Amino acid sequence: MLAPIAVSMGDPAGIGPEVAAKAWAGRREHGLAPFFAVGDVRAIEKIWDGPVERVSDPADAAALFETALPVLSIQDAGDITPGEPDVDGARCALHALELAVGLTRSGAAGALVTGPVSKAQLYQIGFTDPGQTEFVAERCGISRDNTVMMLAGPTLRVVPITTHVALASVSELLSVELIIAKARVTARGLTRNFGIEHPRLALAGFNPHAGEQGAMGREEIDILRPAIEALRAEGIDIIGPLPADTMFHPRGRARFDTALCCYHDQALIPLKTLHFDDGVNITLGLPIVRTSPDHGTAFDIAGKSLAEPGAMIAAIQLATSAAIRRAAQG
Amino acid sequence: MLAPIAVSMGDPAGIGPEVAAKAWAGRREHGLAPFFAVGDVRAIEKIWDGPVERVSDPADAAALFETALPVLSIQDAGDITPGEPDVDGARCALHALELAVGLTRSGAAGALVTGPVSKAQLYQIGFTDPGQTEFVAERCGISRDNTVMMLAGPTLRVVPITTHVALASVSELLSVELIIAKARVTARGLTRNFGIEHPRLALAGFNPHAGEQGAMGREEIDILRPAIEALRAEGIDIIGPLPADTMFHPRGRARFDTALCCYHDQALIPLKTLHFDDGVNITLGLPIVRTSPDHGTAFDIAGKSLAEPGAMIAAIQLATSAAIRRAAQG
Repeated sequence: MLAPIAVSMGDPAGIGPEVAAKAWAGRREHGLAPFFAVGDVRAIEKIWDGPVERVSDPADAAALFETALPVLSIQDAGDITPGEPDVDGARCALHALELAVGLTRSGAAGALVTGPVSKAQLYQIGFTDPGQTEFVAERCGISRDNTVMMLAGPTLRVVPITTHVALASVSELLSVELIIAKARVTARGLTRNFGIEHPRLALAGFNPHAGEQGAMGREEIDILRPAIEALRAEGIDIIGPLPADTMFHPRGRARFDTALCCYHDQALIPLKTLHFDDGVNITLGLPIVRTSPDHGTAFDIAGKSLAEPGAMIAAIQLATSAAIRRAAQG
Repeated sequence: MLAPIAVSMGDPAGIGPEVAAKAWAGRREHGLAPFFAVGDVRAIEKIWDGPVERVSDPADAAALFETALPVLSIQDAGDITPGEPDVDGARCALHALELAVGLTRSGAAGALVTGPVSKAQLYQIGFTDPGQTEFVAERCGISRDNTVMMLAGPTLRVVPITTHVALASVSELLSVELIIAKARVTARGLTRNFGIEHPRLALAGFNPHAGEQGAMGREEIDILRPAIEALRAEGIDIIGPLPADTMFHPRGRARFDTALCCYHDQALIPLKTLHFDDGVNITLGLPIVRTSPDHGTAFDIAGKSLAEPGAMIAAIQLATSAAIRRAAQG
């Protein structure tokens, strides 16, 4: 039996608490496995009238889950005003994340789902990682280069090989080694988390029309093709480099289980065009299952009961199915 | 009454003749205005059993259209084998394009729809333009910089500001002047061809998250924002730079009539993800209406009766509606 899932609420002034509460409210409709929220319980109480029950041990969450949202509360967010983030909120978000990671690593929680944080606020309290993914990787003792950020929607999964960097610097950052590392983790992660025994990968070209044999850029010839050849030599099923514009329509998507993309927008444009409201971020390569709704803190709508819980629900569902699959695989 | 539309068939060994013939076969179902094909009639006869009638004057096409596909035939394609392009075919395609442009400029044809050509073959016979768009612009006496390639589908229109160039060179090619020129032509073109009186434009950011205030690249600060300010000062309704990944989902698209994108794949990924089978290329800024189905010669499926005519049908429909609007506007 899977231990309850830990949902860190992220920034208490963002929409994290609201989507966690709304996900709980939809637990029957969506068949959600028991989970508990981690964070300042007042962040929920401020914006939601439903039943909440504090727990000090995740083991208590399963029994409670049917009647109330279990919360492992951290009382240090200071004053909470939805839509107005501050450093106290950032400290609370970081504390909640750290606790949730620890509980998941120990097995007290079955998987980790992380709510959205404010990086701007986190940087003010000394946080130095680019995002939660790197923080979680570090806490799990895994090098960043051996983890992969995958965005998964119902009809498309993508992996950006480079992420939050200036587009003009991507060409320099791409390397045969980086692509090989990301593809290996992706292939393994598809088997571990999604139960795909023989994963089919596709690598997107960097240039228009995948460069047309070097007529429009040489990245395909110098970097992408050698990486594909090396990956095939080790038995990984990967096609490409494919022209990126014709990869993502329904017949295009049918050719692969995951698209590896050279840069942020190449991956995120098709994913969010198709799955803006139900995209899930899953970190591959970790000893634990970690997912996250693919949206930000949305401070502009926080506290207004406007937040859609679809992505949080999808993140909890994927965390559950991945954790069950991994437990079965041993 | 609109004069018949000229459809140049493109490469006789590609799918151009087939989609033109199939569009004619669907003329009633799709309510198509009379058109005539321009090219070697044998290219159609090789792959299609339907009725064909040669015409020497476009004026004869309208009366014929109900019972047969009118073809203004050029007898110089040499031997035609579907799927096997050669230089004779390229000469025929170029001749057909030139004739169709001339007929449209003269008013004998109401609009121009161009079928797909093989650039590789055209380059072998001395063609030097990047594509048909530039050739048409030149024949119309318009500078390339004052034309715009728009891709239009039923739920999204995009304009790539730069097109078939290496991605690493885009940052250098982007300029305030270029964006202003493209945006002006786009705004005017939306009114002229689509009847949108107050066009709403959106400019996509170049970097992830539109650069996050310079944290990931400075193109937004140095180039995109100044261009937007200048355009607003002259009364053009334009928003941005918007994070490109969150622009193209349904609520995102509702904010604008056309997205201006910094590079080829930024525009073409969302367009083809959503409208792979019914995207239309329309050239704005010309004295004539010119559209084109947004697909290539597809030599791999030519002659197999597998080509889908949806994009050609959409191209003819858009050419018709644009020509009627422009005639009404004077």
